[in-house]
Amino acid sequence: MPVDAREDLIRRYDAMRGATRSLIEGLSAEDCTVQSMILASPIKWHLAHTSWFFETFILERATDDFVPFDPSFRVLFNSYYNTIGEQYSRPDRGLLTRPGLDQVLAYRDHVDREIHGCFARAERLIGRVDLEHLVEVGIQHEQQHQELILTDLKHLLSINPLHPVYRECPESEIVAPAPANWVTYADGVYHLGHEGRGFHFDNEAPSHPLLLAAFELASRPVTNAEYLEFIEAGGYRNPELWLSDGWDAARKYGWKAPAYWLGSRDRRTVFALAGLRDLRMDEPVCHLSYYEADAYARWKGARLPTEAEWEVAARGVEPCGNFVEDGFFHPVPTQQSSATRPAQMLGNLWEWTQSPYSAYPGYRAPSGALGEYNGKFMCNQFVLRGGSCATPRSHIRKTYRNFFYPDARWQFSGLRLARDRA
Amino acid sequence: MPVDAREDLIRRYDAMRGATRSLIEGLSAEDCTVQSMILASPIKWHLAHTSWFFETFILERATDDFVPFDPSFRVLFNSYYNTIGEQYSRPDRGLLTRPGLDQVLAYRDHVDREIHGCFARAERLIGRVDLEHLVEVGIQHEQQHQELILTDLKHLLSINPLHPVYRECPESEIVAPAPANWVTYADGVYHLGHEGRGFHFDNEAPSHPLLLAAFELASRPVTNAEYLEFIEAGGYRNPELWLSDGWDAARKYGWKAPAYWLGSRDRRTVFALAGLRDLRMDEPVCHLSYYEADAYARWKGARLPTEAEWEVAARGVEPCGNFVEDGFFHPVPTQQSSATRPAQMLGNLWEWTQSPYSAYPGYRAPSGALGEYNGKFMCNQFVLRGGSCATPRSHIRKTYRNFFYPDARWQFSGLRLARDRA
Amino acid sequence: MPVDAREDLIRRYDAMRGATRSLIEGLSAEDCTVQSMILASPIKWHLAHTSWFFETFILERATDDFVPFDPSFRVLFNSYYNTIGEQYSRPDRGLLTRPGLDQVLAYRDHVDREIHGCFARAERLIGRVDLEHLVEVGIQHEQQHQELILTDLKHLLSINPLHPVYRECPESEIVAPAPANWVTYADGVYHLGHEGRGFHFDNEAPSHPLLLAAFELASRPVTNAEYLEFIEAGGYRNPELWLSDGWDAARKYGWKAPAYWLGSRDRRTVFALAGLRDLRMDEPVCHLSYYEADAYARWKGARLPTEAEWEVAARGVEPCGNFVEDGFFHPVPTQQSSATRPAQMLGNLWEWTQSPYSAYPGYRAPSGALGEYNGKFMCNQFVLRGGSCATPRSHIRKTYRNFFYPDARWQFSGLRLARDRA
Amino acid sequence: MPVDAREDLIRRYDAMRGATRSLIEGLSAEDCTVQSMILASPIKWHLAHTSWFFETFILERATDDFVPFDPSFRVLFNSYYNTIGEQYSRPDRGLLTRPGLDQVLAYRDHVDREIHGCFARAERLIGRVDLEHLVEVGIQHEQQHQELILTDLKHLLSINPLHPVYRECPESEIVAPAPANWVTYADGVYHLGHEGRGFHFDNEAPSHPLLLAAFELASRPVTNAEYLEFIEAGGYRNPELWLSDGWDAARKYGWKAPAYWLGSRDRRTVFALAGLRDLRMDEPVCHLSYYEADAYARWKGARLPTEAEWEVAARGVEPCGNFVEDGFFHPVPTQQSSATRPAQMLGNLWEWTQSPYSAYPGYRAPSGALGEYNGKFMCNQFVLRGGSCATPRSHIRKTYRNFFYPDARWQFSGLRLARDRA
Repeated sequence: MPVDAREDLIRRYDAMRGATRSLIEGLSAEDCTVQSMILASPIKWHLAHTSWFFETFILERATDDFVPFDPSFRVLFNSYYNTIGEQYSRPDRGLLTRPGLDQVLAYRDHVDREIHGCFARAERLIGRVDLEHLVEVGIQHEQQHQELILTDLKHLLSINPLHPVYRECPESEIVAPAPANWVTYADGVYHLGHEGRGFHFDNEAPSHPLLLAAFELASRPVTNAEYLEFIEAGGYRNPELWLSDGWDAARKYGWKAPAYWLGSRDRRTVFALAGLRDLRMDEPVCHLSYYEADAYARWKGARLPTEAEWEVAARGVEPCGNFVEDGFFHPVPTQQSSATRPAQMLGNLWEWTQSPYSAYPGYRAPSGALGEYNGKFMCNQFVLRGGSCATPRSHIRKTYRNFFYPDARWQFSGLRLARDRA
Repeated sequence: MPVDAREDLIRRYDAMRGATRSLIEGLSAEDCTVQSMILASPIKWHLAHTSWFFETFILERATDDFVPFDPSFRVLFNSYYNTIGEQYSRPDRGLLTRPGLDQVLAYRDHVDREIHGCFARAERLIGRVDLEHLVEVGIQHEQQHQELILTDLKHLLSINPLHPVYRECPESEIVAPAPANWVTYADGVYHLGHEGRGFHFDNEAPSHPLLLAAFELASRPVTNAEYLEFIEAGGYRNPELWLSDGWDAARKYGWKAPAYWLGSRDRRTVFALAGLRDLRMDEPVCHLSYYEADAYARWKGARLPTEAEWEVAARGVEPCGNFVEDGFFHPVPTQQSSATRPAQMLGNLWEWTQSPYSAYPGYRAPSGALGEYNGKFMCNQFVLRGGSCATPRSHIRKTYRNFFYPDARWQFSGLRLARDRA
Repeated sequence: MPVDAREDLIRRYDAMRGATRSLIEGLSAEDCTVQSMILASPIKWHLAHTSWFFETFILERATDDFVPFDPSFRVLFNSYYNTIGEQYSRPDRGLLTRPGLDQVLAYRDHVDREIHGCFARAERLIGRVDLEHLVEVGIQHEQQHQELILTDLKHLLSINPLHPVYRECPESEIVAPAPANWVTYADGVYHLGHEGRGFHFDNEAPSHPLLLAAFELASRPVTNAEYLEFIEAGGYRNPELWLSDGWDAARKYGWKAPAYWLGSRDRRTVFALAGLRDLRMDEPVCHLSYYEADAYARWKGARLPTEAEWEVAARGVEPCGNFVEDGFFHPVPTQQSSATRPAQMLGNLWEWTQSPYSAYPGYRAPSGALGEYNGKFMCNQFVLRGGSCATPRSHIRKTYRNFFYPDARWQFSGLRLARDRA
Repeated sequence: MPVDAREDLIRRYDAMRGATRSLIEGLSAEDCTVQSMILASPIKWHLAHTSWFFETFILERATDDFVPFDPSFRVLFNSYYNTIGEQYSRPDRGLLTRPGLDQVLAYRDHVDREIHGCFARAERLIGRVDLEHLVEVGIQHEQQHQELILTDLKHLLSINPLHPVYRECPESEIVAPAPANWVTYADGVYHLGHEGRGFHFDNEAPSHPLLLAAFELASRPVTNAEYLEFIEAGGYRNPELWLSDGWDAARKYGWKAPAYWLGSRDRRTVFALAGLRDLRMDEPVCHLSYYEADAYARWKGARLPTEAEWEVAARGVEPCGNFVEDGFFHPVPTQQSSATRPAQMLGNLWEWTQSPYSAYPGYRAPSGALGEYNGKFMCNQFVLRGGSCATPRSHIRKTYRNFFYPDARWQFSGLRLARDRA
């Protein structure tokens, strides 16, 4: 690896690792230990698992006489890589009071030192291309966990009747959102998926041609004010608006509003990482399940976009100013709305698409453990696009495919309407 | 309606209703009452619900001074039509010992008489086109329930340690299946979905163009012999072959073989509607979940076809000789295998595709209660194609989309391999 | 066995078997097949299991060259006798549509014939004392199932929104119940448990001395009118009245009134074996759990009696006129109330005592399979005393110990208050 | 209150509070936060709840212008006192990362200061007798939680695959236990329950006469060696030895040995608060459920003692040398065994009795919130007697009644055999 490339990679590694650490500033050991639901993980686990990733996929292969920091970590912090071996029970991650936060931070320091030290050896042992690729994957992987640290933490704190404040955040300016416009797109053959040499996950490839009918996409996401109309029109009480599974989920979980909405009709509040706040009508609606997003769209006589439509529309847009680095930790209102270009597609909040998460034509999972990264989840989930206020800016791409089960609500997930062109 | 068309419709109505009745010959009132799992319904319920469908969608609208056979049936035998009103609890259908089978059969007779009688009135009250359409939908609907009567019954009987025989069935001739060939299909723009005026379900439309890459499809379904190799190679013990959700399901349910396989490695048997039989190596493997079909395909270095690929391939084929009317009630082996034309695509068993069950571009659910027929299930299920030994021959179409959850195993569901063209 | 004794035993056997048959008159095969909850069994199962009892415990031992009616029945209709062998899964009893009701009735006829035929042989093979004892146990056992047939049937029919009528029953005369009196009992040493040679279950023995403090017992059971006061005073909303486990059960099951109470505050109805009827204020309250009985007693500043107190008080009383033979199938009001003798202690409804179901001092379970009859259930249940409108008159004794879990409500279970003597 | 009595009470309060603090030395904030099962509570919660008890029952009443330390604690740390008001959800106690351990310790300090300060005021406001009683109850209450801190912690650490050591403990000397003798007790009238003015819980009263038949009690608890014979004789595979509910529990939970036994037949280990150790044959068997204790006794042809028998036998004995202050945190072997006096009845481990936990005749729960302390749990639990290695020495009494559900295994619970006198 040329010195410049290597130094750049190390610099990015260090910056990314530092960003993870800065996310937990102000959190107690207790905050970092508890698992608030099966789908979430303790922050301590995220801190350890991301280090385990570098240790297992790089240090173990790229070190002569490799000695693990702690042999028990191989199982404890393996998430789901059967190729690597056994995994500690996922629902029980929150029961591990040992190793403590201090020891996990020491583990991180150890891995950082070793990663720095291994570059020369690593090129010899596993080759430059592999090393570069593995470090890159490790960086991208940990960026995903940075987002999960925030969403899992939000869920954990939300359960506490004291409504703890994670961090005082800047309050965005109150705006009167412009009406949404329909931006139109012609039919034709488009290419979907990532092209070129830049980093991308396996699930973004291969790029492939696709026939699209003409369609229209809303110039901005749906707002709280708009979603409140749906609620007040009885949207949560009318099964005809819902997918059958969605209606079942709504009843099972007792949904009557998006996640983290509290208070009553008289005074609606939301729990945010900055604590309990009044509901702002200008903000985009967030923390919706796929089912709620779908029901809202149906109620409006519209639909969710496909991920292909979303990707086509995203081609001409710029990222908005709300990624994790911006410190809002919450979606902000759309400042302007153009008739020709959709706003806020990248950043702010994830947008549900109507596309089930499936393999692109010709997709092949990579061989080895990294083949388990994405491919084995291509079932029962739906694609979200665009990144959120909890996503690192450098992590997102227009071809980026996020995916969650349709009843998941703890991500920063909202929606943007689409419709067939008349 | 011209007299001929009307008489033809009535004749088809009568034949279909008679076919339903003939399915329950030899069954006791007890057999028709019990619900063996939440996903299944009592046969008595199927008999009543299909009559309820005609009563509610036709008689109620097409009869002056309509008087229901029994007012309580409106709720008791409503499956999931929120537009119609309340529904009796689905998991509790098996608790209804009253109305008894006798009364349900009387209900059927009543509906048959009224349907016959309503044709003249109905044209006046709801118009000829609607009447014709509704009767047709009612026929198709009941044909679907004919298949469910058999699959639900098979599940019920399979639980009984006495291994009851539903009906003595002809045993198909034992063959030595020819090796499967790969039939190749060129890339190009194809039209997917139903065209023309013939009956089809809303979910088969609209017909729309689609770009397909070149692909290959196996000339016949996978056999028991082939699937047994997967089992003996440890397929059920190797998580790397499975989708993550599939692996979880396999462990949760303790899957070690297809449903209805009994016995041990020394002597494998299968439970069929004709009772307990030795496993036949030449028969296609059946009663697989999507997860098992997918894992098997991955193990073979192949994949499941998309529903578009399947439909394209089905264009040139003829139905095979194994529908419900043929009385096998069980898949039969492929007699021959051509290098240029896939065998047994229509009939014999349903084939899992890799396609999540979604709306075709431009799809709109019909208005009114029939809009609930298909659209609200377009989530979390996978498409199966081709019909089975339990499907009425006149019910199947090459564009027909069946759909089930990926862990469902009680339908006659198998698989056919596909792969990208090299 | 003297001819007279033998003929008397056969006569009692025949009468008891006939009584079972008469209970199912008017029921359909469907009614006899379905299992409405895990704690209940299908009527068909009761019919078969009671015959299995005679076949297994008598015919199998008392017959040379014994041939079972159907070998599969040994497992299918074994309830819980591990000494005998495997048992078919209890929660799945309702899935057995085969053997049908007809075949089960044929099984009964077969067993009856064989029992008649075996008396001569049996005395030789197993001895007179054993034979007599086993037939007696078989009779008592089936009488218990006669009661369960009615209570399980009531539960099954109660779920049906059609409110089916089991049998038109005589309506008891409406009375204005006299106020309950407190009947007083002195302290002293009493003997508890069965003495003498008459039939009794093992759990009624050994008779043993017991010190009792002076106490008082209500002259009649609590009425619906009295229990309604508890409801209207918020009894179901006040945790301070409840045992901790009882409060949890009440919330878990959503209890707001006794089982089978329907309707609203404006018009309360009850589901009875005679169908849906208006709630009668003069009837004793019935279908209470132990928890509700206990909470009511606490609310009244009283308590439930111990089983010892109950048995002492029962010594001087006569059976009331409401057993299963009387055909009410429902508790009737107390016609009179004496200041010195409690009314309706035997018959009408079971009365919860505060006594956990435990072994009497010196109790030893019999050896062999019959040792499993009672002893292994001496844990987590509470004793009820007195018999009910569903109990055969000849079955009850003053020392008889019935037992159910404290959350059970589907038996005819009510309460009578007790208190310490001031 | 005389100065001496007050100073003595304050001294005891301080010593008890200090003992609680010393228990958590060496534990991390993480260790104190996690809830490992619903039945257990986080240590932090125990620390706070015991302080809440003093704040709510004393400070709130005994302070002019009472200001709570934190108003939210009133709900957060209320365990089950409906009289006081709402309670935070018990299964979610482990989700409360805030208040942190530091804040909870500050809460303790605050309460200690206020309790010290309130004595003069308190006598005026609530009277000397009440104050003395409430402080005493608070001390006893916190002593109970001291034991729970250890048993809940043991459960938490046991789940961790790292087998963390709570504290290095002295290893008791290995002995060859003498054979157990049967100590005999004559029949007669005994008084059961607490007499006199000393502190006791309401459930130990009133003292009442009781007739006991002659019985025999083993001179020492059952040892691991003896229990291992039961295991190796197939005790866990033979349903005939078990109560029906016990057999169900054993299968549901997969019991094959006492809790915390690990390893295989070749090398059995136990998890203790001192970490993973080899199983010692001389130690008494511990961490048994009631069901296991009962099954073992039945296998030996013996039975568990009643609590009355236990209490009668305990009259002549001295406490053994293994309470929490002794620092073993684990049962120790019986050093000697007398033919006339049972050893180790007080201390070492709790002994299951066969007595369901019920009210003594004449029992009345106290009025007010303290009435909820014991009375509402008198259902479905069984009495254990004697105290354990985790019990404070000053806490135990010969009349002390501990109680747990019969499937509980995380307390230091073993057994001592009893039998009827021949």
